[in-house]
Amino acid sequence: MKKFNTATPSGFPEFSPSEEPLRQKWLHIIAETFEKYGFQSITTPLVEREENLLGKGGNPKEIYALKRVQDEVGDRSHSGNTLRFDHTVPLALYVARHQNEINFPFKRYAIGPVFRGERAQKGRFRQFDQCDIDIIGIEKLSVLNDAIMPAIIIEIFEKLLPKNDFVVRINNRKVLLGFFDQLGVSVDKAKLVLDIVDDLEKLSREKITENLKELGLSTENIEKLFTFTSITGDTKKVLSALSDMEGNAIFKEGVSELTQVMTTLDSMGVDPKRFTLDLKIARGLDYYTGTVYETTLIGYEGLGSICSGGRYEDLASIFTHKKMPGVGISIGITRLLSQLSSLGVIAEENFSVIEVLFIPADECATQKCLLLAASLRKKGLRVDTYLETKKLGKKFDYADKIGVRYVCVIGENELSDDNIQVKNMKTGQAEMVAMSGITEFDFKA
Amino acid sequence: MKKFNTATPSGFPEFSPSEEPLRQKWLHIIAETFEKYGFQSITTPLVEREENLLGKGGNPKEIYALKRVQDEVGDRSHSGNTLRFDHTVPLALYVARHQNEINFPFKRYAIGPVFRGERAQKGRFRQFDQCDIDIIGIEKLSVLNDAIMPAIIIEIFEKLLPKNDFVVRINNRKVLLGFFDQLGVSVDKAKLVLDIVDDLEKLSREKITENLKELGLSTENIEKLFTFTSITGDTKKVLSALSDMEGNAIFKEGVSELTQVMTTLDSMGVDPKRFTLDLKIARGLDYYTGTVYETTLIGYEGLGSICSGGRYEDLASIFTHKKMPGVGISIGITRLLSQLSSLGVIAEENFSVIEVLFIPADECATQKCLLLAASLRKKGLRVDTYLETKKLGKKFDYADKIGVRYVCVIGENELSDDNIQVKNMKTGQAEMVAMSGITEFDFKA
Repeated sequence: MKKFNTATPSGFPEFSPSEEPLRQKWLHIIAETFEKYGFQSITTPLVEREENLLGKGGNPKEIYALKRVQDEVGDRSHSGNTLRFDHTVPLALYVARHQNEINFPFKRYAIGPVFRGERAQKGRFRQFDQCDIDIIGIEKLSVLNDAIMPAIIIEIFEKLLPKNDFVVRINNRKVLLGFFDQLGVSVDKAKLVLDIVDDLEKLSREKITENLKELGLSTENIEKLFTFTSITGDTKKVLSALSDMEGNAIFKEGVSELTQVMTTLDSMGVDPKRFTLDLKIARGLDYYTGTVYETTLIGYEGLGSICSGGRYEDLASIFTHKKMPGVGISIGITRLLSQLSSLGVIAEENFSVIEVLFIPADECATQKCLLLAASLRKKGLRVDTYLETKKLGKKFDYADKIGVRYVCVIGENELSDDNIQVKNMKTGQAEMVAMSGITEFDFKA
Repeated sequence: MKKFNTATPSGFPEFSPSEEPLRQKWLHIIAETFEKYGFQSITTPLVEREENLLGKGGNPKEIYALKRVQDEVGDRSHSGNTLRFDHTVPLALYVARHQNEINFPFKRYAIGPVFRGERAQKGRFRQFDQCDIDIIGIEKLSVLNDAIMPAIIIEIFEKLLPKNDFVVRINNRKVLLGFFDQLGVSVDKAKLVLDIVDDLEKLSREKITENLKELGLSTENIEKLFTFTSITGDTKKVLSALSDMEGNAIFKEGVSELTQVMTTLDSMGVDPKRFTLDLKIARGLDYYTGTVYETTLIGYEGLGSICSGGRYEDLASIFTHKKMPGVGISIGITRLLSQLSSLGVIAEENFSVIEVLFIPADECATQKCLLLAASLRKKGLRVDTYLETKKLGKKFDYADKIGVRYVCVIGENELSDDNIQVKNMKTGQAEMVAMSGITEFDFKA
C-alpha cells in the first residue's frame, strides 16, 4: 500500500466535533450582532483577479495563485486567479462594480476564510476566518459612524467572553499627526513615527527613544511625545486637555472628531468602563486616516489587540473615480479562538448536538425506536437512534463518549409494556416512561 | 488611471444583500435539520495535499493547485497544496487521521465551498457550496442507516420548497447488478450497462437500445431490461414482485436491503407520497455499492436530481487499512439556488435585515435617535440610525430602497414633545408614539 500523508497541510486548520459548537456559536453571535446594527451580509468569491489584489497592495509573496494540476492546452481562463487575503479588497471591488445599485451609506458584513501564504510557523494560519464590517459612504461619511464600531465590539465581546474584562481603546490619527507636526516631524517621516508609537507597548522606553532619535527627534521632543501619549484618565478631562492644546488644523479636526465619537458613545448609553481614549493607539496599517480602535483583553495584554479597525478616506480609488470613505473593524476568529484555547480562557466542552439517543436493547425494538425518535424530532429535539448490532454495554459506551444527555432504551420487556427506560446520562438516574407520554417528557431538564 | 477589470472571475459567484437572506436561510435550515438527526459539524481545510486528492480519483484537469504569486527561494512548504473538489475526500482523510478518537458510527455534516476548474460555461461554477452528510462505520454499517437519508432529504426540501412537490427515488445497485448477471452481462461490462441505465430518462429508447446493442446485449435481453426498469406502482407490490423473481445472491441481497430501507421509512412515519422505489435509478458515480437516491422536483424534471447519494463500501481504503463503509447524500446549494432562481421557482425579496430605521429630521435629534435605537436593540430588534447630512426626502428614499419596515422620525418638534413619528413603510401609515413607550411598540406587526 502506498503511504499517504493524511495530516492537514501546514497552516490549514480543521475543526472537530468538540471544537465546532463553540466556533459555530461565536460565528452566529457575531453575525447576529452585525445584523442587529443594520449590517447586511454579502458573500464575495474566495477568488479574485491577481492584478486587483496586487493593485491594492497585496504581497505577492503571500498571495496564492491558482493553477490547475494539469492544464488543458490553450485554456487560459484560469490564469490570474488568486485567493483573497482579506475582505477589504473584495469589498472595494464589490462596491466599484455595484456602485450604481448600492444605497449609500452601505453597511455590509463579511464572514469567511481568507488566505495568506506566509512561511509556516507555530500559531500562524495560512487559511483563517475573518469577520468584518464596514460602512462605506460616497464622497463623505459622518464621523458619528465611527462611534458605532466600539458599540458593536463591546456588544460582541460581552457575549463571546462574558467572564472576561476587556477595553476598546480609541484614538484618532489626525490628533497624532497634528501633534507630530508641532514637534517639527516632517510629513514624510510622520508615518515612521506612527509605526514607533504603534510599538509603544511592545518595546522598552529605551528602544523607543533610540528609534525616535534615529528619525532625528530631539531629546526634548521625544520627552514631549512620551508625555503626550501617556495622557490618561477621565475621557472628558483628556478631551478638554486636548482642546486646550495648541495645534494645527489637522490636530483640531482630530480632537473634534474624537470628541464627537466619545460624546456619541455616551449618548448611546455604552458602558463607559468598556472604552477609553488612548493616545498611544496608532494602528500599523497605512490606510487609516482618522479614528482608530484596538481592543485589549485585560489580563491577556500579550495577545495584542483582539479586534481592531478604523476610518479610511479611500476604499476603492484605484477601481473607481468616486471617493469612498469608510470605517470598519475586523475580528480574526480563527487565530483568536486558537490563542484563547491555548491560554485556557475558553475550553472545549464534551458537548453533543444530540439531545436524545434511542437504544434498541433487542433488534425487535429498532423500528419502534425509529418511530419514537421521529416523534421527538417533530417536537424540535435533536434525536438519534443507535442502529448497529452491538452488545448493550457497547451501545451505552457510545452514548457516553459522544456526550449525549438522555438515552431512551427499549427492549423486549419495554416493547410488550409500551414503556421506555429513560436515562439521564449526567445524573445516572433512570425512570420508566410510557411510550404514549414520551413527547411530553422534559428532555431539556 | 490604470483600468482594472473589477468583474468577478468567471465561474466564481458572489451573493448580494438581495440574495443573501434566502441563501443564509437555506444554509441554516439544512444545518439545523442535519443536527436534528444527530449529525455533528466538522470543518476541514479548503486545502488538501495534491497526492491525496489525486489518489482518490480527483481529475488533475479540474483540481486547482496553489502557488504563491512570487515564491521565496528555497521555501517548498507550499508545493503540493490543492483546493478540495468535494467533501468526501476530506472526510476520508479526517476519518483516517482521527480513527482512534472517533466514536463510530460517525455521523458528520460538512457545509462549505468546493472547487472545480472546469472550462467556463453558462451555469457552471468553479466555486460552489456543497452540504453533505455521511454516516461512517468500522467494518460494517447497518443498512437501516440507508433509510435515514431519504427521511432527511424529505424534511429539508419540505422546508426549503414548501410550495413545490418532489419525490425521492430509491434503488439498490445490487438489484441492478444482480439482474444484469441474469441477462448474461459480464462483470466487466456491468458498470457500462449501469451508465446506460443512468441515461434512461435522458436519452430516447432508440438511443438506449443502440448503446446496449453495442455492448453485445441481445434484443430479447434489452427488452427484458426495459421491462424490468419500468416496474412501478405500490412499493409493497414492487418488492413482492422482486422477491418472486429468480436471481443470484447479489440480487437477493439487494432486494433484502431495499425491503429493509422501504420498511424502515414506513416505520418512521415518513410520508409515502414523498418517496418511491425506482429501478431506473443507477447514479453515475463509481463508488456506490448498494442503496442509491435521487430527488426529482415535480414539474422541473429537466433539472436532474436536486439531491443524490448512496451507500459505499469503502470510504478510505487508500488512507487506512480499516474498512469503512458509509452512506451519504449531498446538496449542491449554489447550483440549485441559481437554477431555481432562473426558473422563477424562487424569487429575490426586497428584504432588509433592518427592522427599524431612525431618521433624525434635524441634526439636533441625532443623539436622541442613537439612544432610542440602542434601547430597541436591547429588545432584540435590528435597528439602524441614518447619520448622514441629507435632506429629509433623501433619507426616506434610502429607507424605501433598502426595504426597511419601520421608520422612526425625530425632528425639533418631536424632540420638544418627547414624541416619535413612527411610519410603517409597507402601509404608509404614520402615528405619533411617546418616546417613553417606544420599546413597547409592536415593530413585528
